[in-house]
Amino acid sequence: MTGCRHVATFAFVEGATEEQIAAVASGLGALRDQIPEIGEYHFGPDLGLNDGNQQFAVVADFEDVDGYLAYRDHPAHQAVLAERIRPILASRSAVQFAL
Amino acid sequence: MTGCRHVATFAFVEGATEEQIAAVASGLGALRDQIPEIGEYHFGPDLGLNDGNQQFAVVADFEDVDGYLAYRDHPAHQAVLAERIRPILASRSAVQFAL
Repeated sequence: MTGCRHVATFAFVEGATEEQIAAVASGLGALRDQIPEIGEYHFGPDLGLNDGNQQFAVVADFEDVDGYLAYRDHPAHQAVLAERIRPILASRSAVQFAL
Repeated sequence: MTGCRHVATFAFVEGATEEQIAAVASGLGALRDQIPEIGEYHFGPDLGLNDGNQQFAVVADFEDVDGYLAYRDHPAHQAVLAERIRPILASRSAVQFAL
């Protein structure tokens, strides 16, 4: 295995506002400068192409599992989860796989 | 928007075998040669780092939404879904976002 890709999708509660979802994106965007282990890092709201989709996805690439674990447990990441994501989260799906 | 990233995560039914999950990966791997719209294409089984994860993820990048739609609706992709994924699928989450 050469790298580790983290994938997460979020469904938000009914009533989550565009401002709240934009705050998720801006919060995640700020992590790149705070967590050097982050490699490729892409995220965004669902484009609305398919019924039944979740509303937001994050894909983060790391050199190895340790890099992912550093991201997962980093206080700045935990703060985004606690302050911006969990308050509007209805459900979450995640996978980490070898890249 | 310059591109479109498709993200899907799958939870498999209890009793899905390693052979069945390997057949999902090999079926997806064969799509690259059949669907020229596919750009970067990575997928794999969950690494087991976190409780509560789903069991498999796919991340496919396309030049544009039309490329994604060509992949989504391609008969070879539909055959992998029908023959290898849906028979062992417990739940699925998906998002397409601008890349």
